[in-house]
Amino acid sequence: MEKINLKRLAAELNLSSSTISRALNDSYEVSQITKQKVFELATKLNYQPNPHARSLRKNGSKTVAIIIPEVENNFFALAINGIEEIAQQNGFHVLIYITHENASKEVAFARHLLNGRVDGVIITLSQGTSDISHVNDLLENNIPVVFFDRICEDANTVKVTTNDYESGYMATEHLIKRGCKKIAYLGYINTLSISVNRFNGYLAALQDYSIEKNELYILNCSSSHKESYSRVKNLLNSNDRPEAIFASVEQLALTCYEACADLNLKIPEDVKIISFSNLKTAAFLNPSLTTITQPAYNIGKEAAKELFKVLCKEGSHLENKKIVLSSSLIERRSTE
Amino acid sequence: MEKINLKRLAAELNLSSSTISRALNDSYEVSQITKQKVFELATKLNYQPNPHARSLRKNGSKTVAIIIPEVENNFFALAINGIEEIAQQNGFHVLIYITHENASKEVAFARHLLNGRVDGVIITLSQGTSDISHVNDLLENNIPVVFFDRICEDANTVKVTTNDYESGYMATEHLIKRGCKKIAYLGYINTLSISVNRFNGYLAALQDYSIEKNELYILNCSSSHKESYSRVKNLLNSNDRPEAIFASVEQLALTCYEACADLNLKIPEDVKIISFSNLKTAAFLNPSLTTITQPAYNIGKEAAKELFKVLCKEGSHLENKKIVLSSSLIERRSTE
Repeated sequence: MEKINLKRLAAELNLSSSTISRALNDSYEVSQITKQKVFELATKLNYQPNPHARSLRKNGSKTVAIIIPEVENNFFALAINGIEEIAQQNGFHVLIYITHENASKEVAFARHLLNGRVDGVIITLSQGTSDISHVNDLLENNIPVVFFDRICEDANTVKVTTNDYESGYMATEHLIKRGCKKIAYLGYINTLSISVNRFNGYLAALQDYSIEKNELYILNCSSSHKESYSRVKNLLNSNDRPEAIFASVEQLALTCYEACADLNLKIPEDVKIISFSNLKTAAFLNPSLTTITQPAYNIGKEAAKELFKVLCKEGSHLENKKIVLSSSLIERRSTE
Repeated sequence: MEKINLKRLAAELNLSSSTISRALNDSYEVSQITKQKVFELATKLNYQPNPHARSLRKNGSKTVAIIIPEVENNFFALAINGIEEIAQQNGFHVLIYITHENASKEVAFARHLLNGRVDGVIITLSQGTSDISHVNDLLENNIPVVFFDRICEDANTVKVTTNDYESGYMATEHLIKRGCKKIAYLGYINTLSISVNRFNGYLAALQDYSIEKNELYILNCSSSHKESYSRVKNLLNSNDRPEAIFASVEQLALTCYEACADLNLKIPEDVKIISFSNLKTAAFLNPSLTTITQPAYNIGKEAAKELFKVLCKEGSHLENKKIVLSSSLIERRSTE
């Protein structure tokens, strides 16, 4: 295969090699339009910066990027703190990029990072992301990327996550053992492995206890709070109200509390609630909330440790492996 | 005054002008040590990049930085979202730097941003920060900086905050009107204007209602949860237990709930609680929490709007002004 170097890119775009170099280095001396052209061609031709340049860059940036969907979520806030602990130990800065669940923003950030602005990336996918070629581009350009939480199972790198399937099973089984058969599942139904795994855990528990799946009890909530709220309220207001709700996303537990207050339904008497949650206030809610609590801080820490193993050892590469840290069920009043 | 240009810096350090330029541009072709030397001299001699270069950089980076103490706090999470809304409208990326309340980290970030990596900065000070020369360095290097929330009153730029003094007064008065005279104040006592203003509001309300200040009721909480917890518990366990607590920081309200649960004290019967808070769960706590709720999202939005006014208009400068958005008192069960 032909070797793709700066000269080749320069010839293709009718620019000087130094302009190409500056563009790839995100220099202010090059216009945004030119940079865009250069990045696109570099990606298309799979340009690899030479290893010497990379080692210089490594010494230069001392920065890692975290790409996450939002910060208004305790899980991500805790995971960031775990990552920062390790980064700090290694004398690195951390930059945070927020996608707001927007796949094209995620792709734009990844492209932006191709210039070597950071030495490594820790990413959790946005809901809209179905294709990870932007992550592969980073990996191919020798920028190590570690996934956490919302991982891509197929990615050829380190992935750190929790046991979503088992946790989904455990939450559902907990409600069944409390005498519930009509169990609703609230979630964002999408292609992310964590969503799929939690949901499959729910389905498997129903099946193991010979409870028929009821489509009316499976709510695909939207990221719009208003819409989710009206769907949950309709569910709780229906003639065939569920006895329990399993919220697979922290925010949806609060939506349930809100709807119950509005409809004068008592938790747990009228409806029991369990939720995936890292809420600091879970124990102080009225009633206190039974949660599946993820080891958010440690997930972040583990992801960062894996990244720094590679950053601190010249020539090493991220293995293709998955690290699974278990979540725990914390029983509280909402499922009594 | 002698004009400081690249040539002058180059002569001083015995380097070529292009190396100086690359260093200031954070190029990977320059070692960290050289960059450090160049930054230090540039800062010392008050080097100003020429306006043409700046305008190029502006078109190049399309990025603003947010410097905040933490993300595990709803106020900051909401403010970030407000900033991002405006940044997105302007086609800019946002980078988040977390100081973890560490002043030297804050200074390091500011120095790091001197290279023009971003077009503007939105900052809220860390608890340890007492001197803002790092912010002044950015301003002097034509990198606009807007303060929000934990502002520096003296800074010669735009500051966006809430009415902390009035809110402190309002919270204390609310407790007095509920029949309390023994009112404790929980906070982080430091030099930040918001801390000082909230505390002074508390003192003024006591004075206006002829209630003598009791030093035992003024708790300087530490950022270590464990330590704060034991101080709050001691206070609530003392012979002269306060009738009410005003928590000037969200996290401390939860500390009170925890201590009350531990000591079997009932809120609001045994002790009433009001807190500065943007907790999404405030209404669902047991009991629901009376809050001073800051317009966090709008504070972020306003700060970003002010920054983009300048970023979008060549040659304009940030005015020296303070924008104050009011907080509101939301009465709930914890002070009934």
